[in-house]
Amino acid sequence: MKQRVGQYLMDAVYVAGADKVFGVPGDFNLPFLDDIISHDHIEWIGNTNELNASYATDGYARVNGIGAMVTTFGVGELSAVNGIAGSYAERVPVIAITGAPTRAVEKAGKFVHHSLGEGSFDDYRKMFEPITTAQAYITTENATIEIPRVINAALAERRPVHIHLPIDVALAEIEVSESFKPEEKQHEDVQQYGDMLEEKLKTASQPLIITGHEINSFMLHKELETFVNQTNIPVAQLSLGKGAFNEENPHYIGIFDGEIAEPHIKDYVNQSDVILNIGAKLTDSATAGFSYNFDIDDVIMINHKQFKINDTVVNDISLPDMLNGLKDGIHYINENDYPQYQRPQAHNYELNDKPLTQETYFNMMQDFLQLDDVLLAEQGTSFFGAYDLALYKDNTFIGQPLWGSIGYTLPATLGTQIANPKRRNVLLIGDGSLQLTVQSLSTIIRQNLKPVIFVINNDGYTVERMIHGMKEPYNDIRMWNYKALPSVFGGDHVEIHDVNTSEELMHAFESIKSNNDCMRFVEVKMDVKDAPAKLNNIAKAFASQNK
Amino acid sequence: MKQRVGQYLMDAVYVAGADKVFGVPGDFNLPFLDDIISHDHIEWIGNTNELNASYATDGYARVNGIGAMVTTFGVGELSAVNGIAGSYAERVPVIAITGAPTRAVEKAGKFVHHSLGEGSFDDYRKMFEPITTAQAYITTENATIEIPRVINAALAERRPVHIHLPIDVALAEIEVSESFKPEEKQHEDVQQYGDMLEEKLKTASQPLIITGHEINSFMLHKELETFVNQTNIPVAQLSLGKGAFNEENPHYIGIFDGEIAEPHIKDYVNQSDVILNIGAKLTDSATAGFSYNFDIDDVIMINHKQFKINDTVVNDISLPDMLNGLKDGIHYINENDYPQYQRPQAHNYELNDKPLTQETYFNMMQDFLQLDDVLLAEQGTSFFGAYDLALYKDNTFIGQPLWGSIGYTLPATLGTQIANPKRRNVLLIGDGSLQLTVQSLSTIIRQNLKPVIFVINNDGYTVERMIHGMKEPYNDIRMWNYKALPSVFGGDHVEIHDVNTSEELMHAFESIKSNNDCMRFVEVKMDVKDAPAKLNNIAKAFASQNK
Repeated sequence: MKQRVGQYLMDAVYVAGADKVFGVPGDFNLPFLDDIISHDHIEWIGNTNELNASYATDGYARVNGIGAMVTTFGVGELSAVNGIAGSYAERVPVIAITGAPTRAVEKAGKFVHHSLGEGSFDDYRKMFEPITTAQAYITTENATIEIPRVINAALAERRPVHIHLPIDVALAEIEVSESFKPEEKQHEDVQQYGDMLEEKLKTASQPLIITGHEINSFMLHKELETFVNQTNIPVAQLSLGKGAFNEENPHYIGIFDGEIAEPHIKDYVNQSDVILNIGAKLTDSATAGFSYNFDIDDVIMINHKQFKINDTVVNDISLPDMLNGLKDGIHYINENDYPQYQRPQAHNYELNDKPLTQETYFNMMQDFLQLDDVLLAEQGTSFFGAYDLALYKDNTFIGQPLWGSIGYTLPATLGTQIANPKRRNVLLIGDGSLQLTVQSLSTIIRQNLKPVIFVINNDGYTVERMIHGMKEPYNDIRMWNYKALPSVFGGDHVEIHDVNTSEELMHAFESIKSNNDCMRFVEVKMDVKDAPAKLNNIAKAFASQNK
Repeated sequence: MKQRVGQYLMDAVYVAGADKVFGVPGDFNLPFLDDIISHDHIEWIGNTNELNASYATDGYARVNGIGAMVTTFGVGELSAVNGIAGSYAERVPVIAITGAPTRAVEKAGKFVHHSLGEGSFDDYRKMFEPITTAQAYITTENATIEIPRVINAALAERRPVHIHLPIDVALAEIEVSESFKPEEKQHEDVQQYGDMLEEKLKTASQPLIITGHEINSFMLHKELETFVNQTNIPVAQLSLGKGAFNEENPHYIGIFDGEIAEPHIKDYVNQSDVILNIGAKLTDSATAGFSYNFDIDDVIMINHKQFKINDTVVNDISLPDMLNGLKDGIHYINENDYPQYQRPQAHNYELNDKPLTQETYFNMMQDFLQLDDVLLAEQGTSFFGAYDLALYKDNTFIGQPLWGSIGYTLPATLGTQIANPKRRNVLLIGDGSLQLTVQSLSTIIRQNLKPVIFVINNDGYTVERMIHGMKEPYNDIRMWNYKALPSVFGGDHVEIHDVNTSEELMHAFESIKSNNDCMRFVEVKMDVKDAPAKLNNIAKAFASQNK
């Protein structure tokens, strides 16, 4: 079958699992965009800029399984690198396609726009190497080899890949003998590692699982839960990867975030004699600055391509292989007691007309949460308040505490909401973060999506203030008329709410629940120095880490 | 004298020529920002995001001579790479400083936020290598060596440099024996090259100078004009670097942009037998897709570190050295005739209530231009219309036709205007471009700057439509209520103008001239398919180049 390379690539992207492609047009990708908009199953989502497109693609991929985006050479792809690096750090599979000058232009070393003007064409591709798991320069000769190779790498590693697509190659016809099919591998036999683990567990008086983001990345929730139900080992999870474990499962004990965890959780974790770290990464923000008392060298690491137990280190077994093997291959049942997760009590707040506090805001948010919500929490007061909310089994929680790029969640909401418009998406964000990527609100409106957006207006970068510079001018921002933003961006049907008190927040909640057929934009004013208790503590750890 | 490294660095930045530092706070730079805000001569300009900060720094550096910016590790610096790459391509000296984790954190390979979570800390520095002319990892031991080295490199090469500054290093006290002083070198003797040039010119029946952006980068306007006045060689300039030559000088013949230049200019250039390319780069956008008839191998290249005449190629002489040598060392006076530049006639348009056309818009803009204006023209209809405007001697013209990153000029206007608040800054931009970086308008307002901003609202990416996809949906954008933007961003004192016709544009002009003490925001509606004639032609060249 004859196909243009661009068509073959879009078929492959669709088969890999993406039916939306995000991006920004540019002359080195324009004719290729024709093969996107004319594709039977793929929808082009035009973005206001490339950083926003990269965040949106990441959000889409977190809900949908994989995402794809298209930018133009140089100016476009380089604006996306922050977002792609975030996908790399937090393991989100994104296919980043750059429409590039023709091979003839490159060969002649021409001084074309968007180049550095010196005849070289490989600088940007090099810049993508540290932040992508595979890279390809597509030609007509290698298209049916290289496109499958990098897409399979994205699927296997749950990390971004970069495709450099000269525009003449995109438009060239090639003979395609078979369409892309994702590689299916037999699971590796991990019985020997299961045996080692079983041996170790038998000695345990207080075994524990700490889990995190790789479970979300590899979508191994069922495998993990099966393993837990069979072995009866309790589970704590990190804020980095909240949602990895079903918080309604009776084996769940709660969030472990180092020194600042609830005492009974902290004590249980720190006193555990056999800790299984499954798909988790003990980062500074997840552990209040590495404030745990167990010896990290004693922890059994079951991460993607990192299995470590005692002195045995294995670096070639994937996390899916390992979890699939363990869930059936471990014959061990924990008979030790462990603390039960205490779900926050409903309605533990008072409705009044006093200034709303962060504490009441998050207590009320707990009651607002519905069974199937996608909850996005921006790095800052929003994330550090939200990660202690109790999720339901079918909630999806999205934050970015390892990469921690402020501004991420607003464009990410475009991606998560468009991945499934039927689920309610709730975004918690602050004013400082919103300002970085505000124009993506226009794309959310343009796509007729209906998320519920809460914007904390507390006059600046509160997360930074807590770390250093409470009153310093560099943590100030310009006060905007936030509530006017939807209308400026063409969102005449967006319902706006102005919240200063718990009573007003409850009114907003009631209004939102009464009609889910429009987007909501809620401005929540809170004091500049108010912050969730946990942020205060993590901020101190961050400040101390910088000394 | 004892100083913190951060203080030493800020002193050096100030001595190098920057009294504003742009950026965004982040916890790896926060305590260092204290040394910026407490500096006697430096003002911190907080930006809404790092891409906007990088564009603003570039604009500031183009007017001021050098610029500096500060971001945080990873998420911050990577958001700035597109802007830094633009400064590299177009030769604008920018000192890009990254506040980074401490050496102790790096040495321990900790999984800290903003890292890729794998214990490596040099990935982002590597990504800056292709787009900066020098890089430094600052320690307490090397600070007084490395900081001078990279700042001198920025000054000498007129290109960005990258400084990786661990936050513990920034705060550490060192013994400083002498403050930074820019390196002053004796000019190299270039007499032998002058002699070769003189020999060649003596044979010329139609000599010509083509000049461009390096004259602006190295601020060699006087040297070039002295050389031209002495030798009587006529000068054409490229759109890439418009402003390199005084358009009021009688030796100026006009813009050369390949096939689409005015016939008498095109003919003169293409028939010239001795062409001196001085600080110019014949890029695709500057030459309507390389549409010149002379043999590029016959051109005498006098660029920075590239002198080429006949078979002689010299790659170690700087452009300042060369021009300083040539302006006194050439004894040649051209006696051939050449065409005179025809300045556009004033008032060659009719005021009426019909829809405004691009042609009339730019004809009227010619009359609006004042002697000392800084004129910024966004890549797109704005640039391709504006580069044919006749400048006065003291105008500054800023575009970005080599790098060509849309969205550049709005943040750049923050930089150019704050570099000298007394000069009138006039920005010509379109709706599609404005959307990429719109939040920088809030910083312009926050700084109480008063530029005159014209936003063409023609419903999408017209420059892309002209190249490919006139009616395709990927060139559409969301319609915004542009006129409401200043007020949303806290600009209650911004005067807003709504322009649909030439009469309304004239009213706006008159109002603007009557009171220069407030910022102006002019929305100019024009037809979606209307474009400056030159854009039509360049778009065809770009489309054809992609085949």
